[in-house]
Amino acid sequence: MSEKIPVAVLGATGSVGQRFISLLDNHPWFEVVALAASDRSAGKPYTEACRWVLTDPMPAWAAEMVIVQPTPGQVEAKIVFSALPSGQAKDIEPAFARAGAAVCSNASAYRDEPDVPILFPEVTPELIHVIKDQRQKRGWSGSITTNSNCTSTGLSVALKPLKDAFGLKKVFVVSMQAVSGAGYPGVSSLDITDNVIPYIGGEEEKVEWEPRKILGELVNGEIKPADFLISAQTNRVHVTDGHMVCVNLELERKASPEEAIEVLRNYQAPQAARDLPSAPNPVIIVRDEPDRPQPRLDRSTGRGMATVVGRVRPDIILDLRFVVLSHNTIRGAAGGSLFNAELQVKENLL
Amino acid sequence: MSEKIPVAVLGATGSVGQRFISLLDNHPWFEVVALAASDRSAGKPYTEACRWVLTDPMPAWAAEMVIVQPTPGQVEAKIVFSALPSGQAKDIEPAFARAGAAVCSNASAYRDEPDVPILFPEVTPELIHVIKDQRQKRGWSGSITTNSNCTSTGLSVALKPLKDAFGLKKVFVVSMQAVSGAGYPGVSSLDITDNVIPYIGGEEEKVEWEPRKILGELVNGEIKPADFLISAQTNRVHVTDGHMVCVNLELERKASPEEAIEVLRNYQAPQAARDLPSAPNPVIIVRDEPDRPQPRLDRSTGRGMATVVGRVRPDIILDLRFVVLSHNTIRGAAGGSLFNAELQVKENLL
Amino acid sequence: MSEKIPVAVLGATGSVGQRFISLLDNHPWFEVVALAASDRSAGKPYTEACRWVLTDPMPAWAAEMVIVQPTPGQVEAKIVFSALPSGQAKDIEPAFARAGAAVCSNASAYRDEPDVPILFPEVTPELIHVIKDQRQKRGWSGSITTNSNCTSTGLSVALKPLKDAFGLKKVFVVSMQAVSGAGYPGVSSLDITDNVIPYIGGEEEKVEWEPRKILGELVNGEIKPADFLISAQTNRVHVTDGHMVCVNLELERKASPEEAIEVLRNYQAPQAARDLPSAPNPVIIVRDEPDRPQPRLDRSTGRGMATVVGRVRPDIILDLRFVVLSHNTIRGAAGGSLFNAELQVKENLL
Amino acid sequence: MSEKIPVAVLGATGSVGQRFISLLDNHPWFEVVALAASDRSAGKPYTEACRWVLTDPMPAWAAEMVIVQPTPGQVEAKIVFSALPSGQAKDIEPAFARAGAAVCSNASAYRDEPDVPILFPEVTPELIHVIKDQRQKRGWSGSITTNSNCTSTGLSVALKPLKDAFGLKKVFVVSMQAVSGAGYPGVSSLDITDNVIPYIGGEEEKVEWEPRKILGELVNGEIKPADFLISAQTNRVHVTDGHMVCVNLELERKASPEEAIEVLRNYQAPQAARDLPSAPNPVIIVRDEPDRPQPRLDRSTGRGMATVVGRVRPDIILDLRFVVLSHNTIRGAAGGSLFNAELQVKENLL
Repeated sequence: MSEKIPVAVLGATGSVGQRFISLLDNHPWFEVVALAASDRSAGKPYTEACRWVLTDPMPAWAAEMVIVQPTPGQVEAKIVFSALPSGQAKDIEPAFARAGAAVCSNASAYRDEPDVPILFPEVTPELIHVIKDQRQKRGWSGSITTNSNCTSTGLSVALKPLKDAFGLKKVFVVSMQAVSGAGYPGVSSLDITDNVIPYIGGEEEKVEWEPRKILGELVNGEIKPADFLISAQTNRVHVTDGHMVCVNLELERKASPEEAIEVLRNYQAPQAARDLPSAPNPVIIVRDEPDRPQPRLDRSTGRGMATVVGRVRPDIILDLRFVVLSHNTIRGAAGGSLFNAELQVKENLL
Repeated sequence: MSEKIPVAVLGATGSVGQRFISLLDNHPWFEVVALAASDRSAGKPYTEACRWVLTDPMPAWAAEMVIVQPTPGQVEAKIVFSALPSGQAKDIEPAFARAGAAVCSNASAYRDEPDVPILFPEVTPELIHVIKDQRQKRGWSGSITTNSNCTSTGLSVALKPLKDAFGLKKVFVVSMQAVSGAGYPGVSSLDITDNVIPYIGGEEEKVEWEPRKILGELVNGEIKPADFLISAQTNRVHVTDGHMVCVNLELERKASPEEAIEVLRNYQAPQAARDLPSAPNPVIIVRDEPDRPQPRLDRSTGRGMATVVGRVRPDIILDLRFVVLSHNTIRGAAGGSLFNAELQVKENLL
Repeated sequence: MSEKIPVAVLGATGSVGQRFISLLDNHPWFEVVALAASDRSAGKPYTEACRWVLTDPMPAWAAEMVIVQPTPGQVEAKIVFSALPSGQAKDIEPAFARAGAAVCSNASAYRDEPDVPILFPEVTPELIHVIKDQRQKRGWSGSITTNSNCTSTGLSVALKPLKDAFGLKKVFVVSMQAVSGAGYPGVSSLDITDNVIPYIGGEEEKVEWEPRKILGELVNGEIKPADFLISAQTNRVHVTDGHMVCVNLELERKASPEEAIEVLRNYQAPQAARDLPSAPNPVIIVRDEPDRPQPRLDRSTGRGMATVVGRVRPDIILDLRFVVLSHNTIRGAAGGSLFNAELQVKENLL
Repeated sequence: MSEKIPVAVLGATGSVGQRFISLLDNHPWFEVVALAASDRSAGKPYTEACRWVLTDPMPAWAAEMVIVQPTPGQVEAKIVFSALPSGQAKDIEPAFARAGAAVCSNASAYRDEPDVPILFPEVTPELIHVIKDQRQKRGWSGSITTNSNCTSTGLSVALKPLKDAFGLKKVFVVSMQAVSGAGYPGVSSLDITDNVIPYIGGEEEKVEWEPRKILGELVNGEIKPADFLISAQTNRVHVTDGHMVCVNLELERKASPEEAIEVLRNYQAPQAARDLPSAPNPVIIVRDEPDRPQPRLDRSTGRGMATVVGRVRPDIILDLRFVVLSHNTIRGAAGGSLFNAELQVKENLL
């Protein structure tokens, strides 16, 4: 164990924090040396401070760890996974970056900064190199890297090979999102039982912007977003895990569904991301059945790291339509951050 | 009671048949004189033959009625409400029309015929007059009138005032539909619990065509569909009743959300449909809250006959987007047929 | 309106408070003159301070009322309905009783006091007279009357005619309770979707004690509980409204299921409670179908005030077993308090 | 692979059949050589004939197998796992037993026969030896072994150590059962959403009898049931997998909850069953948290083969009460049959 890289989890008691701990259990490269959470939990053993909500059991090593405060003085780790609320992330994440840690964050606090990547190793690993500019500009020895909003996740991955092959012009998106996206306790059972809620605060703005940054390019030390347009409507449905998205697409060059399926199926992650421990392989699964993907049946594909596409068919108005599914608390949250950290290790950026 | 119009329900034991019986209980104009269903049920008292699934109790008068076979000889009624499966409707409905009955049907068997209206009294009551041509052409003394697929319902109503005021060019639709749309037993609990099913057989084709016919015009004895385009993606979600639809809209003339809300809110049904017993008033409710409509909270608005619109806002790519909700087994099925029958009474078309 | 009795609701913004307001809409005897809630809401119009969660719309008169603080100086009402949390009820309810109001409470704070009735007009209306002793003993001009825990409700009503006819010895109870019993937001969707929670804090103790007090008698100015035994196991299931209870029963005198059904069906409320506005009639419905009652189909029986019993059958070990259903937020909460207030009006106890 | 024991699955396309195939994937001792199902499916590749409903994917070897008819001539296997409906099992299972196969059945057709064991290797493996008498009496070279109704499963396992240590007199049982217990499509979503169904046809009779046979003893070539009494009430709740049971217990010798927990926790399967591939270890998990077990969190304990007990506490009327959970389609169905087959291999009874 002694040669593994020491890592910490900030916001360890919440639902994303728990997912970090579960995914870090037996990780081949990382060893958890600190669990941090807010004042109220600090000083307690993890098992006391945390209401564990995952179906996988709490790892024994985590149960006994005493929670510390989320400050660099309390946490000695090369990589810091942040599951903090955005308000807290605003101050705490830069403190760690300044102190030399590679912060891999789920929070949205820094996603909009042009020198902070929203990183997806399986589609645009080259964007990680913006952190060199980030360090220089901000005077940090560490860095902040983010993963996207959980609804942008599967969408961005599925759009990449289509953008490469045919060019993207317009993207219409309607999401049907799982309750776990709102954290725990999150959505009241009285609100979602026998119901759909056609609104998630701030979500549509993120979905209309983040995939463009994720699929952007590095120009003069900043990430320049791709220039297609996205229109998003986001809904909460009665599903525990797994965000579904219905997509209508206008391409720059016409493509048949068969051509689209071929580029999706043949898609390979760039070399840098291929052999990382969290890398899904294949990156994208295309289902042929007319009624797939479905959250309950397909969300765990590729240990929750794969993107599942289905119903690829011509659009009566634009070019193509399809459905895409991604596990919102694995690929769309904790698993995404791990993947980002692994890429930084491989690229010698710690 | 003797002066009420005698009516019958075909397919009386199924879930739509039950809804007909529930809505016809104490109807001011109609009196049920016959309940008809397939061979297996015929001869039994209704209460024995039917597994009642509505939360409103079975009316006492229905419980005791003995089920007859769905043939004109067995059923003496001026108006015949058909909740038959499409396969049976194909032969049985014309038999009643030939025998002089006004068939008001939920089945899709005749919806595509240019001389058979998909009738929505609150938006295009004038289309009922196509049945004069229908009678002449087919040699019937009665008629067949249909209501639309349950997903086209709220959508068509909401589009009417916008079409009148601004003109329609392109409509993108993603539906989130209730399980009751599949009848009873319909969707297995194992399929829909913690899940979304992104496919409903034949549904998208209907949603892309029916609203155009509903909003069409009567030309030379046939209904000519309106000439905008619809692209539909349909999904089954875990909701008992109430179909939600997310809409993106391109108009012929630009309109702000405020202008759209004003025409939706001020919309009045044409005079012919205003005072009918099943007429919703207002026809359209526009909710201002950011998170409405919701199926559980809003589906019963206007006794399930109103169309509820919300989240009217500009579209980043086209002109407008909004959400629309309609009760699929009331306005979208049995209630719609009753409304259609009432219009025929008022227009002296029996 | 001026001749109606002025009433107030304390804790008006919560889910039980909302139910009070909904049930008081158009009440024939009562007029709401004040809505009170905690500091944070006081001063705001009700529609602003309250997240309305009922499917019935908020009454227009309530929307505009400005919320006041829950103190006798702020609230001039003869009857005060309390939906306060138990902690706040402890101090606030006696303050109103001292100031002359008849407090009808949902809180458990005073349920255990021998001079405070847990009142069920349809079974033991005579217990209301303990408030004369309560006034004398405590020096109040008003009073506190409570209704029971929502799980004790249907159980107590169903046990009364059986106790009268056959005597009760032992009662085994296993409940399956709705999420609305935990208030709003209450139970997280992540906790109850695809799940059962076999524990509700403090509930079993209440269910083992309250029915005995409800079915007790007035002796020397105190309520003496009935002397049968109850063993309770309580569970939360995925139902919005309606608590189900499975009961096994040992009687003092043997009875067949047919005899039990007869006494349940023939049960009449005592004369004092029969014609009150909230009185269910019949008090108890016995269903003959093997699979009833069911929460979704039967909870609204008698506008949510009736007790529905089914599956009355012999027990292989004791004497009888059956299932009982009651609407937990109507008969088991706000509706029960209204009923209690109406009894006090009829008995001239204000 | 050539040294593995050839096995077949009858009723392979249904939900229990699918579970058999999933659990047999990579089984260390068994190799599936035939999949059999009714006339309609026979002749088709499995992947075509079967609507796969498990979240684990269909094994590749199964997808390509061509389904055969469920007759001994078509199926050459030493062990035959039967997921047939009881009606078909009545004739087909004896045909295989006569032909020399060890039939391990989920059907209830032969459970009541005194020479057919309801086998639970972790509690009463010795009962398998009744099949010697079965062979002799019936002139079979093979045998029929059954596993119990899925609700009796966890209950029987949890009762065994308590019976051994303290003796059992009376057992009150109320179940909350998952929808998968009714097969696929099984329970309609319209019946169970926001609902509880307090009735499952034939279930209570099974639960009152089967645990007594399971915990019985072999006397003169027949299984003599244990002589305690069970009273059962069975309910369907909105859970996909995992049957919960609330138990009240009267013992022959008093025991404290602590003593009961100790014997439950220390319970070891008899030597014969300990090292079988499907054996859970530990057999019984006792949870200390007040709100466990819960179906969603605990049903997969021990790969779905363990019995999870919680809330062990004194009963106010009898001696003890507790809650027990078992995975109804793994331990309670296909997994149980595999376990039974493994025991027969170990005991050289094929």
